[in-house]
Amino acid sequence: MSQTRAYAAHAADQPLAPFTFERRQPRPDDVAIEILYCGVCHSDLHFARNDWGMTRFPIVPGHEIVGRVTAVGDEVSRFQVGDMVGVGCMVDSCRHCQPCQDGVEQFCLEGFTMTYGSDDRQDGTMTQGGYSDSVVVSEHFVLRMPEGLDPAAAAPILCAGITTYSPLKHYGVKAGHKIGVIGMGGLGHMGVKLAKALGAEVTVFTRSDAKVEEARRHGADHVVVSTDQAQMDAVAETYDFMLDTVPVQHDLNPYLASLKYDGTHILVGLLDPIEPAIEGFNLVFKRRVLAGSLIGGIPETQELLDFCAEHDITCDIETIDIQDINTAYERMEKGDVRYRFVIDMASLKNASAD
Amino acid sequence: MSQTRAYAAHAADQPLAPFTFERRQPRPDDVAIEILYCGVCHSDLHFARNDWGMTRFPIVPGHEIVGRVTAVGDEVSRFQVGDMVGVGCMVDSCRHCQPCQDGVEQFCLEGFTMTYGSDDRQDGTMTQGGYSDSVVVSEHFVLRMPEGLDPAAAAPILCAGITTYSPLKHYGVKAGHKIGVIGMGGLGHMGVKLAKALGAEVTVFTRSDAKVEEARRHGADHVVVSTDQAQMDAVAETYDFMLDTVPVQHDLNPYLASLKYDGTHILVGLLDPIEPAIEGFNLVFKRRVLAGSLIGGIPETQELLDFCAEHDITCDIETIDIQDINTAYERMEKGDVRYRFVIDMASLKNASAD
Repeated sequence: MSQTRAYAAHAADQPLAPFTFERRQPRPDDVAIEILYCGVCHSDLHFARNDWGMTRFPIVPGHEIVGRVTAVGDEVSRFQVGDMVGVGCMVDSCRHCQPCQDGVEQFCLEGFTMTYGSDDRQDGTMTQGGYSDSVVVSEHFVLRMPEGLDPAAAAPILCAGITTYSPLKHYGVKAGHKIGVIGMGGLGHMGVKLAKALGAEVTVFTRSDAKVEEARRHGADHVVVSTDQAQMDAVAETYDFMLDTVPVQHDLNPYLASLKYDGTHILVGLLDPIEPAIEGFNLVFKRRVLAGSLIGGIPETQELLDFCAEHDITCDIETIDIQDINTAYERMEKGDVRYRFVIDMASLKNASAD
Repeated sequence: MSQTRAYAAHAADQPLAPFTFERRQPRPDDVAIEILYCGVCHSDLHFARNDWGMTRFPIVPGHEIVGRVTAVGDEVSRFQVGDMVGVGCMVDSCRHCQPCQDGVEQFCLEGFTMTYGSDDRQDGTMTQGGYSDSVVVSEHFVLRMPEGLDPAAAAPILCAGITTYSPLKHYGVKAGHKIGVIGMGGLGHMGVKLAKALGAEVTVFTRSDAKVEEARRHGADHVVVSTDQAQMDAVAETYDFMLDTVPVQHDLNPYLASLKYDGTHILVGLLDPIEPAIEGFNLVFKRRVLAGSLIGGIPETQELLDFCAEHDITCDIETIDIQDINTAYERMEKGDVRYRFVIDMASLKNASAD
């Protein structure tokens, strides 16, 4: 076992604070990783605050991990010490069910092992995430970071990136398609970049005039201010797809009406009850589809990292020290981040964690 | 012009009553049809009562029409006098947009012409439906009734049948798939027969024990009483598809939870706001799909009629006289019909319609 320095939430109503715990010694198929950067996802905040009622404390959040291999188990074949690697939202799954065999481990019939807050499938200890100086993960769930990707700016590809890329690929978004991207946060701005790189014509839907120029800077071909009824009316029955990254309740009906017949509205952020209610006729009369999508499988995540290297795509980030994580959470709650906080884990050395 | 005897709704709050009006003389591409049978669809009732606020009175409902050709225009090539033919929910469309070219006229970008209650695209008169002794329709929208299909029992194929068949085909339902059919009315019982004929394993979801035996008689492999929580729990994550024929508000969440990952819930009857609210996580966590579907195109409707003849599939019907239409509407409102009323139009000769 090795001592690991980290920041953890110790209770739902307390700020994150230094925490020391033990990581397992690498098993034969394990890769030990020194963490260099870890992105800050909204899920981290929800877990730290126990918004979903499933958190066990203390918990170390973080599932957008980039680091360097420091040791490998005897059976590890794909990585060696010194490699730059990534770890996303999953660190294990049953590995034998059909979804696992198909490389969509996020749909593992026995449930995948989350990077933090799950029980390890072998020793039953609770997994702890990337707000820490090291992690030990089975090589099957370790991604290779391509040369040329800035490691800090690439970290959010492992969640925000794959969450938007996976549905674009699943539904075959390509040149000739018109796609709307709803919301311009961490997921939305990656959705714009990825949909553009796949060849689609991209329209950003935003509630505020303030984000119009930024949307264009990310590559959007068009911007629609969704609070302007005239602009919304002008795009009725226009899009093949909507990529909806908004994580809070909002009215889907105006967006459904903006889809062509056979168009698909893809939810990646909304887990709550869908209110206001969807009008059934908005689906039935034009054979439209409302779909959900959840992160992405390991093979697809590797594909995305390689795609991002090829197309020079990373996340727009603001690098922070781990000591600033609580302030970062407060700013995230206000939407005050463009577009993802990434923790420089070197700062952890300054923490009095033990 | 020719005098046509019919039954019409003259106002939203009045029973249907005899009505005489003029049908146009056949245009060069028209087929004139003596109507023998006309199915009674819930939409007829909604239109007669102006439930959707779009009815212009007097209106002659009916869009499940079977009859015999009595005359053809000069340019008609596919039909001749004496042929048995059918007319469904559409009698025209723009014919040049992409959906029309693709044979999905129900998604015509200019809007299709409904069999009743629409404006004729050439002369602007309002179309009138099949509760009448004759109809004149462009041959493009006329279906050939195959030999061997009972004409009365085949009439509802033109709406109830195609409404359920089209999504089964669109989503590629076939042997190896498990499908749930929700609701056992006119649409539901056709959905069971058609899904079985396509090779799928079919489970009927019904709220009442009373319909279990009937569901099996229609070919269902399994029946789940949806009000029995234990039965619902036992089928979590089981189905590839749900065909939801229920036309009134109901909770979709238990059915979504019964879908496998990547499963598709298809709405064909629900036009109202979807309440109780769908839980976003029910879509997102398993990449499930909620889809709408609307009738079917003309080529697919002909394919279905031929498929029904090949597989000896018709609707279970109760034949009525036109004089009984108001009683039939009352019984439909109570769900007291197994499974479709079909009007024997010979009865119209007894009506004092002029």
